[in-house]
Amino acid sequence: MAPIRTAIIGLSSTATTSWASAAHLPYLLSARGRAKYQIVALCNSSVESAKRAIEVFKLPPETKAYGNPQDVADDKDIDLVVVSTRVDVHYETALPSVKAGKQVFVEWPLAHDVAHAKELVDAARVAGGRTLVGNQGREAPPIVKVKQLLEQGSIGKVFSSEVRAFGGTVDREALLPGLKYFTDRAIGGNIVTIGVGHLFDQVQYVIGEFQNIQSQLQLQRPNVLLRDPSTKKVVETVKSNVPDLIIIDGTLAASQIATDGANVLFRFRRGQQFPGDPALSWTINGEKGEIRLQAFGGSSLHAGSYGAPVTIEVHDFASDQVQKSEWSWQSWQEELAIVGRSVGVLYDKFAEGEFEGAPSFETALVRHEQLATVLAGWDEK
Amino acid sequence: MAPIRTAIIGLSSTATTSWASAAHLPYLLSARGRAKYQIVALCNSSVESAKRAIEVFKLPPETKAYGNPQDVADDKDIDLVVVSTRVDVHYETALPSVKAGKQVFVEWPLAHDVAHAKELVDAARVAGGRTLVGNQGREAPPIVKVKQLLEQGSIGKVFSSEVRAFGGTVDREALLPGLKYFTDRAIGGNIVTIGVGHLFDQVQYVIGEFQNIQSQLQLQRPNVLLRDPSTKKVVETVKSNVPDLIIIDGTLAASQIATDGANVLFRFRRGQQFPGDPALSWTINGEKGEIRLQAFGGSSLHAGSYGAPVTIEVHDFASDQVQKSEWSWQSWQEELAIVGRSVGVLYDKFAEGEFEGAPSFETALVRHEQLATVLAGWDEK
Repeated sequence: MAPIRTAIIGLSSTATTSWASAAHLPYLLSARGRAKYQIVALCNSSVESAKRAIEVFKLPPETKAYGNPQDVADDKDIDLVVVSTRVDVHYETALPSVKAGKQVFVEWPLAHDVAHAKELVDAARVAGGRTLVGNQGREAPPIVKVKQLLEQGSIGKVFSSEVRAFGGTVDREALLPGLKYFTDRAIGGNIVTIGVGHLFDQVQYVIGEFQNIQSQLQLQRPNVLLRDPSTKKVVETVKSNVPDLIIIDGTLAASQIATDGANVLFRFRRGQQFPGDPALSWTINGEKGEIRLQAFGGSSLHAGSYGAPVTIEVHDFASDQVQKSEWSWQSWQEELAIVGRSVGVLYDKFAEGEFEGAPSFETALVRHEQLATVLAGWDEK
Repeated sequence: MAPIRTAIIGLSSTATTSWASAAHLPYLLSARGRAKYQIVALCNSSVESAKRAIEVFKLPPETKAYGNPQDVADDKDIDLVVVSTRVDVHYETALPSVKAGKQVFVEWPLAHDVAHAKELVDAARVAGGRTLVGNQGREAPPIVKVKQLLEQGSIGKVFSSEVRAFGGTVDREALLPGLKYFTDRAIGGNIVTIGVGHLFDQVQYVIGEFQNIQSQLQLQRPNVLLRDPSTKKVVETVKSNVPDLIIIDGTLAASQIATDGANVLFRFRRGQQFPGDPALSWTINGEKGEIRLQAFGGSSLHAGSYGAPVTIEVHDFASDQVQKSEWSWQSWQEELAIVGRSVGVLYDKFAEGEFEGAPSFETALVRHEQLATVLAGWDEK
């Protein structure tokens, strides 16, 4: 099978540590990735910028350079378009290719608001191209493992579950200057949509969709410091309108793994946890036992949580014994930078066709709608 | 000053491990207690039963034995009446003495429902006797310590707080046969009123009253096993109508220690915590730092939490250092059984007159009303 001819929109040469280069390139440039994908074009804000990126990332000189998403859409020799720009331009950069019926992979969040996410969903339905969204946390091995444990009935049916997470930004009061936009909800990329959004997707993918959502939000530290990472100096103080404490409560519907009305409590606080506490602690309490997942190096299992242990333990009520449940990367993933590993699985499975749990424009829209409800509830108060 | 002449209603000789003997007698029979109080009468379900208790507990033979709460109320030589019966008879045993204008100390919960608690409050107001309720957790040294830390401004103003507790009963599925009534809400003594009620009072005493309460309740294990503690055999299986997962969310009003709208999340699950986790973890997140109280031996700081460490730590954000904050019993408390120590402080302070934070019929009524709202919300679903 010929490799899928791929264009990336948003691989910037000036931000060499950007998400596209950190998370997408490792797989795409690996032997396994090259067998399934071929990067044939880049599209940046200008043709020149795209050309510079082709050089910087040592892509083949025949890689096409575009400065306009419509040109990508019009190129018949492109099968898949990857959109990894800032969230507020996802919609306009993705839409032409979606309409052209191409396959399109958009980073999460799919768009900056529900309306634009819905337009993308509708356009993809009409044009018929396959879609993928960067909720790669579903493929993070600890998430896969917890899902397996539940499906195997290791704790019986789920009675309740609790997620307690910290993070979203490195520091409770400061942000990198480049992430200033995290303080402006209109842009659509912030700790609610990104930090909460990713984890919220993972949790629901594993235990089921939250029903009867109630939420409590708070903005504890509205004055956010933008701190230069090299000088450590505060370069600006910005007023934020994005909540930094998010509590979501819901229930599960009866399912193969959950009892009807099982309570699910999800709490996310921006910034650092109490020293020594896990950044993420997720317990799932069942009929016969309880699962506890703890991540000490961050709550982003879809990305960089792996600098410190991520453990899964199962407490069996009958024996009162706790067993560690091991998870592992696939051998081919170990050759990739960590933040590229779960993205790599998405690409890998996507190339093979439909797959269970594939995050699509449609699954992303459900998350957008949930988060919008959560934020709307706060606005009304 | 002459000792306060005290009658106890509900000191049973057949239940020598009952609360009255375990928690009230140690102080009352101590040298310090005897200087301030004199047990002059017992009242049980019959005069004979009261006489047996006088013998069993080696009270002076001149101690009066009553079989009827009205007789206690009519005895002009009694100053204080202590009601330590099962909750469903608190109202009827306390009321005559309240009406007689005596001082009355009723165990928490004050009554089996709000209406009866309110009647007791009103009757005490009319008759003018001082009241005390057994929310002695306010005097538990870890609670006193956390309150001091907040008042001293050790973490600045409170932004949010989270309580995560397990317990209420020894086991998630079983109860002692004598606690069968915990499964019947109408009786008024169960993990919501007792387990949650005590802790909920302590937390609010320290950080402020919860406003805008929202709650999520669930009954995960409706079939409760009554297990004989000596044979370990299940003697009966009872259908419970008492929730075993209680989540309460609220906000604080602006105060000396809290910012307006600070979120407070309170979660209590019946039974055991995940092995190794604390039975109680309470974090208070402030402007400048965070306090973490952890109790590994149980979540009942007002009673038996002290078989394992109860630690208080303060994380200072500026230095990123964590300091342990020590708490201790007063030297005279160390001579008493642990469950009698905080009750002892209540008695000790009550004898001296009014005191700050004294739990009274009126403060108890506020808790009753809160818990009734929480339960009513569940009934409506």
